[in-house]
Amino acid sequence: MNKLLIVGTVAFDAIETPFGKTEKILGGAATYIGLAASHFDVKSAIVSVVGDDFPQEYLQLLKDKSIDISGIEIVKEGKTFFWSGRYHNDLNSRETLDTQLNVLADFNPVVPADFKDADVVMLGNLHPNIQISVLDQLTRKPKLVVLDTMNFWMDCALAELKEVMKRIDVITINDEEARQLSGEYSLVKAAEVIHEMGPKYVVIKKGEHGALLFHDSNVFFAPALPLKDVFDPTGAGDTFAGGFSGYLAQSENISFGNMKNAIIYGSNLASFCVEKFGTERMENLSKENVEARLQQFKMLTQFDIELAE
Amino acid sequence: MNKLLIVGTVAFDAIETPFGKTEKILGGAATYIGLAASHFDVKSAIVSVVGDDFPQEYLQLLKDKSIDISGIEIVKEGKTFFWSGRYHNDLNSRETLDTQLNVLADFNPVVPADFKDADVVMLGNLHPNIQISVLDQLTRKPKLVVLDTMNFWMDCALAELKEVMKRIDVITINDEEARQLSGEYSLVKAAEVIHEMGPKYVVIKKGEHGALLFHDSNVFFAPALPLKDVFDPTGAGDTFAGGFSGYLAQSENISFGNMKNAIIYGSNLASFCVEKFGTERMENLSKENVEARLQQFKMLTQFDIELAE
Repeated sequence: MNKLLIVGTVAFDAIETPFGKTEKILGGAATYIGLAASHFDVKSAIVSVVGDDFPQEYLQLLKDKSIDISGIEIVKEGKTFFWSGRYHNDLNSRETLDTQLNVLADFNPVVPADFKDADVVMLGNLHPNIQISVLDQLTRKPKLVVLDTMNFWMDCALAELKEVMKRIDVITINDEEARQLSGEYSLVKAAEVIHEMGPKYVVIKKGEHGALLFHDSNVFFAPALPLKDVFDPTGAGDTFAGGFSGYLAQSENISFGNMKNAIIYGSNLASFCVEKFGTERMENLSKENVEARLQQFKMLTQFDIELAE
Repeated sequence: MNKLLIVGTVAFDAIETPFGKTEKILGGAATYIGLAASHFDVKSAIVSVVGDDFPQEYLQLLKDKSIDISGIEIVKEGKTFFWSGRYHNDLNSRETLDTQLNVLADFNPVVPADFKDADVVMLGNLHPNIQISVLDQLTRKPKLVVLDTMNFWMDCALAELKEVMKRIDVITINDEEARQLSGEYSLVKAAEVIHEMGPKYVVIKKGEHGALLFHDSNVFFAPALPLKDVFDPTGAGDTFAGGFSGYLAQSENISFGNMKNAIIYGSNLASFCVEKFGTERMENLSKENVEARLQQFKMLTQFDIELAE
């Protein structure tokens, strides 16, 4: 079974949407990535840090999904990273109400010995120096390195971000971030510029408008599944990344054709994530649910045109 | 050969985009619809009105595309409808600089005798009473009636719009308009509400984010083709409608499966429309261009997943 190494936050979130409001609940990029990747036959591990205020039951939840959590450092008398945000009525924009870095401020990632030869590495959204440190600890070149990042690092750690971008295969980034990073408005041109910075594959996430995969002159597009109700978008991008990297780790085939499938699986899993608050929907998602939705994605996108003559 | 009856404006446009600015050029919904539909084997006619300031060469251009223009009334000493607009930097929003209704103010559409038994009727964006008048002149029920409309009529002629909606099969409308008409933010719910108002098929256009087709519990999505440069979005929605209705008029098959193909053809033709100012790209578009782009749409959307087991 292939190994998937996941680096990212394991955290507390407090979320407000037009539909309700949560207390501190389980959150974090690595959490969502791990839950999504657990739908594939891979051996996965999370590298992260929490405080000793982090409930044992949350760690157990990850373990129950067969995720190796030996790389999650628990800092004694430390407080876990906390993010709080409020989504606006359209759920497409949000404001951050509170961010407490806590133990994340001094995070030194330590890759478990058994995962230094990981087949696929998923670098969740974190300071680029942490992402670089993880790559430096590997004892062999992974088959695939996927990086997720955000505008915050473009604003305050652009040089470091550019360094890590030279060492990855795939970047996942949203449309506004792609425009900021490239200085190009057209996403086709933006992908070209970002490609020149390192990654052979550029995935541009457009939220409810789907995701684009660029590689050389090839482009593939996966829509988001049109849903009656989107309850909470938190974690959808990380879930997408987890489905994408988990599927590729399982299948060992990193051709463009198979990356299309990975994008579809990422979109598939993300469409569940938004149906309930936080990780709730992802905790109890069955293989049957996912396969049934795959059928919906086919209905949504596949056509059989005969050329007009 | 099946008959396609097109009703809509034939007009002058003056357009400003970040890439340039035009004088008065050929425009109008029926113009774009007609040019797009001319790519299919159908007998088409336009019902519209212009003033005698309208250049003969523009009418000739439509005739050269085998469009019957006997239903375009030329008002002596009348002035042609004129619209002027400026697109913002993202090309997704625009402001109207000038609208001169001119001869359109007293337009009484007259359907040519030979098209009173049209197979497909494409009601372009106009006052709902004009759309109703056209339907009233038909001598037999068309196989398919497609309606395009806009928020302006929802604001000032909602009752009339609801009347015409009871007599059509397909409505094409953009996402914001669908939300306004239905009072629902979710496009899935919006389509359900609009469906209850009459049309069995609801097409929601999302501009650069593609188009959705709803019918009962079925949904189909066609992306817009990602382009390096979008030059001028004017007429893209009408071109989409022309490709959609033209394809369906040609193929005589109005199953959901074939409507998917019509949506793809509409998106295909619209992707050309935006490449140059006004109608320029559509005037010289070859069958080969369209077929080649169809291949691009397949590459963009089709995948072949094997179920994970």
